[in-house]
Amino acid sequence: MNHRIHYLECSKTRTRYPPDQLYNLSPDASAPLLVRYQLASMQLNRDSVRDRVPSMWRYREMLPDVRSEEIVSLGEGWTPLIPLTRLGARFGLPYLFMKNEAHNPTGSFKDRGLSAAVTMARRLGATSLAIPTAGNAGGALAAYGARAGLSVHVFMPRNTPRTNLEECMVAGAQVTQVEGLISDAAQCMEKAGKGKDWFDVSTLKEPYRIEGKKTLGYELAEQFGWSLPDVILYPTGGGTGLIGMWKAFQEMQQLGWIGASRPRMVAVQSSGCAPIVQAFEEGRKQSDYWPEADTIASGIRVPKALGDFLILEYIRKSNGCAVSVTDQEILEALLEVGNAEGVLMCPEGAACWAALKQLRALGWADSGDRIVVFNTASGHKYPEVQAKLLTI
Amino acid sequence: MNHRIHYLECSKTRTRYPPDQLYNLSPDASAPLLVRYQLASMQLNRDSVRDRVPSMWRYREMLPDVRSEEIVSLGEGWTPLIPLTRLGARFGLPYLFMKNEAHNPTGSFKDRGLSAAVTMARRLGATSLAIPTAGNAGGALAAYGARAGLSVHVFMPRNTPRTNLEECMVAGAQVTQVEGLISDAAQCMEKAGKGKDWFDVSTLKEPYRIEGKKTLGYELAEQFGWSLPDVILYPTGGGTGLIGMWKAFQEMQQLGWIGASRPRMVAVQSSGCAPIVQAFEEGRKQSDYWPEADTIASGIRVPKALGDFLILEYIRKSNGCAVSVTDQEILEALLEVGNAEGVLMCPEGAACWAALKQLRALGWADSGDRIVVFNTASGHKYPEVQAKLLTI
Repeated sequence: MNHRIHYLECSKTRTRYPPDQLYNLSPDASAPLLVRYQLASMQLNRDSVRDRVPSMWRYREMLPDVRSEEIVSLGEGWTPLIPLTRLGARFGLPYLFMKNEAHNPTGSFKDRGLSAAVTMARRLGATSLAIPTAGNAGGALAAYGARAGLSVHVFMPRNTPRTNLEECMVAGAQVTQVEGLISDAAQCMEKAGKGKDWFDVSTLKEPYRIEGKKTLGYELAEQFGWSLPDVILYPTGGGTGLIGMWKAFQEMQQLGWIGASRPRMVAVQSSGCAPIVQAFEEGRKQSDYWPEADTIASGIRVPKALGDFLILEYIRKSNGCAVSVTDQEILEALLEVGNAEGVLMCPEGAACWAALKQLRALGWADSGDRIVVFNTASGHKYPEVQAKLLTI
Repeated sequence: MNHRIHYLECSKTRTRYPPDQLYNLSPDASAPLLVRYQLASMQLNRDSVRDRVPSMWRYREMLPDVRSEEIVSLGEGWTPLIPLTRLGARFGLPYLFMKNEAHNPTGSFKDRGLSAAVTMARRLGATSLAIPTAGNAGGALAAYGARAGLSVHVFMPRNTPRTNLEECMVAGAQVTQVEGLISDAAQCMEKAGKGKDWFDVSTLKEPYRIEGKKTLGYELAEQFGWSLPDVILYPTGGGTGLIGMWKAFQEMQQLGWIGASRPRMVAVQSSGCAPIVQAFEEGRKQSDYWPEADTIASGIRVPKALGDFLILEYIRKSNGCAVSVTDQEILEALLEVGNAEGVLMCPEGAACWAALKQLRALGWADSGDRIVVFNTASGHKYPEVQAKLLTI
């Protein structure tokens, strides 16, 4: 295996590691490891993917190099890019699109990363997997772990949407509810896992979730006829999708599939938890831990992202920005998109629409721009938010 | 428009009607109308769909004949067919598959029918749409109605899952909650709609929901490499999907895409509401109204299906059968599939797995059979069922 994967690279020091064993953070700098492929020798034509499976595994050469029967898949990815014609007309944005990740197996974009990570973890010998989660990643790990026949340990804040707890338990995962935030869940997991053979699949703490997430970038390019949109709005908790898309753009350029231009990347956060926005505005390269994080958008209730330095680098390089929105704006955006387009967004996705309205009002987003708003999960996974919605 | 559609045909008398106006039931016999195409002159090669859009609209020639920009779509259909390897091994069924309709825009198979029906209703001049629903169809109509810019009136039993109420309201539909069952909701709607210009999109009461639903049959054929499976288990409330698939099989045979053999069609119901099972066992051509229908599988809590005579005809013609399962069996099946395969099924889908276990025990389903179990919706749409699940 791993003939196509050249090495794993530390995202801080560029030190190289062999790809044939289980890794968490890079041993030299405790930073995320990035998977590097033998791109030069690959000679892969972009048109060759056209007839492939309708899942993220259509980009198989750029994903974990395993035998077909070793892939742990539930049909994740290759989600629709839908034009938002009515909303676009109302706001003078004729090229407005939603990438709707609700169409994934567990109803969220987390399936991409966990399909790739569980595939590789099992291939490399892991038998027990553990994760701290703001909600949807736990549900996804429980599903892919069950599908792979591995045992799963999930640690989640007690105020995570109930749906996430239920999906984990139905899939047979061991769930521990923790007082506090995802960072507290991570600490609790570290204690509980001492001396056990749990493999930690926290986002960016192992190399392959980002590989699954990067397929978002491949799909956008293919769906736009092998070009990229002008603006991408992405709800940013851990930021793995944003980092992954940037990696995909680089890989596709090296493969000769796309050119050098890049979308302006917009990291969207909640005003109740906006560490990336604060660091961006203050011109800093890393974010501070956000105290007392609080927002109804539980997926972006992440007080400090491990990959904050990469997120900040990429949004700056792309001439993008970071924007925060209030919970009230999120609820109004949810209703607005539901009424105009019939899509029941998750609060994190609705945050992107609210952020775009801010940028439109400032003249930052323009009528000539091709714009993608991410809906990272189904609104059905947030019963508490929907209930609140109907009382405003 | 409608160059490809030849006429609408009464399913009881075969009387023909022109396709260019709004119809509910056939004027001559108050029976469902079926859409008939100019198949002979079509000369359509099955391989020509291979590169098409990844939605049910890839079978465009066999769907409402409208201009591209008139299609009301949210990316419905072309859902994954996933092998259930671990469950299959446990029960000696090596060719076991799940067609997972959770991957649809509103999380259920109802999106197919409503995408087609709303497209045609708007094209033919409707401005207000009305529906009685057991739950998911209301959510789907609300979504497609919003997307089309039409007003929507939904009538649902008060004990419909809360999720369905919420998705309707976020999409801006007018919702009326009714004491009783879907049949009571239909009566209430009839009264409320008197003198108003509401177009009734009740299942089988207009010709195009079945056209959307039949794409299930086209997709299965394409996903099995243009052959059909041996057994299909389908949760049967109104039965539109079963009737639609049968229609698709006939059309595909006329097009020369498949041969004459058919899957054994199994109608699955709950023991708390099993009118089709009762009529099948008693050798009758129509079902009786099922009194005091009661089951946690709200989607099949349908005491009398308008198309019962078609369902019974097709399951008999195919050497299929009708099977009922208890709520307890449904809950156990949900946990079993979740634990083994990581899929959070809806209770109606879980009923199909419970039914297959019965048939396997009886020797009716065999290790050589290629078997498809339908999961008609995401388990996330049934928070009440999931909560119950964790207490058994």
